[in-house]
Amino acid sequence: MTAEEPLTVQPRTRIVPQTVRGMRDHLPPAMILRHYVADTLRAVFERFGFDPLQTPAIEYAETLEGKYGEEADRLIYTFEDRGGRRVGLRYDLTVPLARVVAQYPDLPKPFKRYQIAPCWRAERPQRGRYREFVQCDVDIVGSASMLADAEVVTVACVAFQTLGFKHFTVRLNHRKVLAGLAEVLGLDPQTSAQVYRSVDKLDKIGPEGVRAELAERGLAPDLIDRLFEFFTLTGPSRDILTTLRERLQASAVGLEGIAELEALLDALAMSGVSPQFYRLDLSMVRGLEYYTGPIFEAVVEEPRIGSIAGGGRYDRLIGLFSGRDYPATGLSIGLDRVCDVIEELGLRPPDLRPTLVEALVTVFNSDLAPESIRLANELRAAGRRVSVYLGEDTLRAQLRYAHRLGVPYVLILGPDEMARQVVIVRDMATGAQTEVPRTAVATALPARAPGG
Amino acid sequence: MTAEEPLTVQPRTRIVPQTVRGMRDHLPPAMILRHYVADTLRAVFERFGFDPLQTPAIEYAETLEGKYGEEADRLIYTFEDRGGRRVGLRYDLTVPLARVVAQYPDLPKPFKRYQIAPCWRAERPQRGRYREFVQCDVDIVGSASMLADAEVVTVACVAFQTLGFKHFTVRLNHRKVLAGLAEVLGLDPQTSAQVYRSVDKLDKIGPEGVRAELAERGLAPDLIDRLFEFFTLTGPSRDILTTLRERLQASAVGLEGIAELEALLDALAMSGVSPQFYRLDLSMVRGLEYYTGPIFEAVVEEPRIGSIAGGGRYDRLIGLFSGRDYPATGLSIGLDRVCDVIEELGLRPPDLRPTLVEALVTVFNSDLAPESIRLANELRAAGRRVSVYLGEDTLRAQLRYAHRLGVPYVLILGPDEMARQVVIVRDMATGAQTEVPRTAVATALPARAPGG
Repeated sequence: MTAEEPLTVQPRTRIVPQTVRGMRDHLPPAMILRHYVADTLRAVFERFGFDPLQTPAIEYAETLEGKYGEEADRLIYTFEDRGGRRVGLRYDLTVPLARVVAQYPDLPKPFKRYQIAPCWRAERPQRGRYREFVQCDVDIVGSASMLADAEVVTVACVAFQTLGFKHFTVRLNHRKVLAGLAEVLGLDPQTSAQVYRSVDKLDKIGPEGVRAELAERGLAPDLIDRLFEFFTLTGPSRDILTTLRERLQASAVGLEGIAELEALLDALAMSGVSPQFYRLDLSMVRGLEYYTGPIFEAVVEEPRIGSIAGGGRYDRLIGLFSGRDYPATGLSIGLDRVCDVIEELGLRPPDLRPTLVEALVTVFNSDLAPESIRLANELRAAGRRVSVYLGEDTLRAQLRYAHRLGVPYVLILGPDEMARQVVIVRDMATGAQTEVPRTAVATALPARAPGG
Repeated sequence: MTAEEPLTVQPRTRIVPQTVRGMRDHLPPAMILRHYVADTLRAVFERFGFDPLQTPAIEYAETLEGKYGEEADRLIYTFEDRGGRRVGLRYDLTVPLARVVAQYPDLPKPFKRYQIAPCWRAERPQRGRYREFVQCDVDIVGSASMLADAEVVTVACVAFQTLGFKHFTVRLNHRKVLAGLAEVLGLDPQTSAQVYRSVDKLDKIGPEGVRAELAERGLAPDLIDRLFEFFTLTGPSRDILTTLRERLQASAVGLEGIAELEALLDALAMSGVSPQFYRLDLSMVRGLEYYTGPIFEAVVEEPRIGSIAGGGRYDRLIGLFSGRDYPATGLSIGLDRVCDVIEELGLRPPDLRPTLVEALVTVFNSDLAPESIRLANELRAAGRRVSVYLGEDTLRAQLRYAHRLGVPYVLILGPDEMARQVVIVRDMATGAQTEVPRTAVATALPARAPGG
């Protein structure tokens, strides 16, 4: 552990610097966008009365397994910790919330919380799908009212509008309607699960792909036709419900689902969300097994990046941990996909630069460094984000650095400027240089845009 | 996957709701404090010109191993992922940064980044030590100047002062001084590593404990005495350096360290940090192996919660990944410990309530729910954090809920109030109720404190 040989423990062979497949670094320009999105979502969540919660990344494996479906279970990162416990990295934020509600029974209900945190899934990496991704969840535990479901859908719509999204749709459906459909078509639970797994791929493989898959699973052609009559019902949501009510009248559970969807549409009408942003879509089934009621999925049609949010009601999940059921509903926004959409649609606010630094103060030479630091500290005290150049280079090199970083202003302070108590403010976009009295530098820099 | 049997996959036996040993949930009242601290640190980091970076939680095991010392290596959470790769959860934020700098050689240097993120260590849980903890790091890569070391120390001091800390000290030392000390005392590298590992426990086991451990390791009593003469040097930092310069004059590396510490003290004097907040302490050695230059450790003396920040210069770490060395220095603030100190010292700002919700809007009955939602939306549009009661309960129950949650104001809206276009504003602290015109509710609520 001497300074000359600080790293004697490991071999001195070079380690290849690489991220694990499917995992990403977010360098400052990307991170600045991610912060903007996360801060925006957080502010919206808080305005709607959600409080923050954080849970550990590592949970007992038995907490995670058996909640999402068999296929999903294989994607959970599980391992044995040093104490021989079977643990895993969280797969979503809903199951940890269910554990929390059971573990702290005194939490006042309705319990409204948000959580913004990474989750991990060992999926095959592809466009828009990452092995580490950040979910932004709002959930309401302890209310069976469709007002709660409408509220989480409203939160998502307000969030997307705040981010500048114009063309998004929240698709609505109901697990009980899907169950009723299976009932009237005479599908046993196993077949219906297979059917819905296929239908879940509609966006990915198209109607012909789904038909082919269903035929492969042994479904009769006329049954497939009857299924598609439902999945392709279009038109105003209320009209679809009217049609559905006729066709599912033999199914009590189906009618229950229809009544709840009507209540959900009523509640959404009260919420102030424009109806252009949501519609019933019977082909939207959501993969996760724990849903029991309404289900939601938000999509941006262009670019076709898949869903940017999903959720639903899960009235029987918490009971697995607590011994008693709590009604619960929630919605999860995918931060990574939202950022992808913003980049593809060019919705990045223009005041979000590749760096947060507003001004770089140059250092003329080491004797004058104290003056540069003093100037920077004055500006910092005024709330500005300022960097002092800490290398030892020519002014030319310092300007090149500011340019590469994307800093909008450079403040130049040499012996001549010091003698005259002025600072040269260089606008990096135009190259224009203005001499500003030392005491007026803070006000000479343009005001920072909110969030900028 | 029918709605009635949504969870048929796994057995219906109850899963015990529990966190893994050493891992913690942060419920809303704790999380609100954590957000306040993280937001404060982030704002200070940004004012000093640091940009955000995020790296994945999972790294290749070889990226992590062999950087921290043998004892530490055993505490890394490593496992095999589904693709058979040996991976691990990050142990700190410095080694991932070193990987990033090597992986993206085009990053403009000096590269100043901050990262606020959880790390994981399989340590024995104890007071103030958790297996999942959040580190808040600032680092400067590409500057060998002591101005860079002074800047990261300054950032920590400004951050602690902004959080209201009055009695903290940043202890300063230098790995080359420790190497010089070993040299003049004739300790071989292995012995000196053992010595410094013992001295690192000074805070924990006291001087007698360290003496006993050194004796056990076979050090002669007079050697131990000579060591302690150094470790117990007190007084003004400059005086300690003068003494040190005499005693280490036989060691070139020791003198190098002394010169750098002098430059660091000079740079700190320029930075505007009051000298009461830092001092030389030759007994502070820091455990991590990768340090090569100045080292820092911030402690709060009361309560004795151990260090709340640590860091130092590591000019040879990045070279392990990149094939060439980059000078680098940085500092890491422990969010969990800072929060512990705030709670113990009562520094939690009074406007940080256990909930972020400013007002709860009651719902008289389901017919009047739309009116309550409309009122809430008006207040939200004015930037207020408002919750609508989504259960179906009596007004009494709704008030009890607001009280338990800690909501400061309840807005009551019944048929009578609606007819007269007013809202009853109930101050939950006093029980006082005021009637306010419907349009004036937003201004009737007291302005929110910044960060509150």
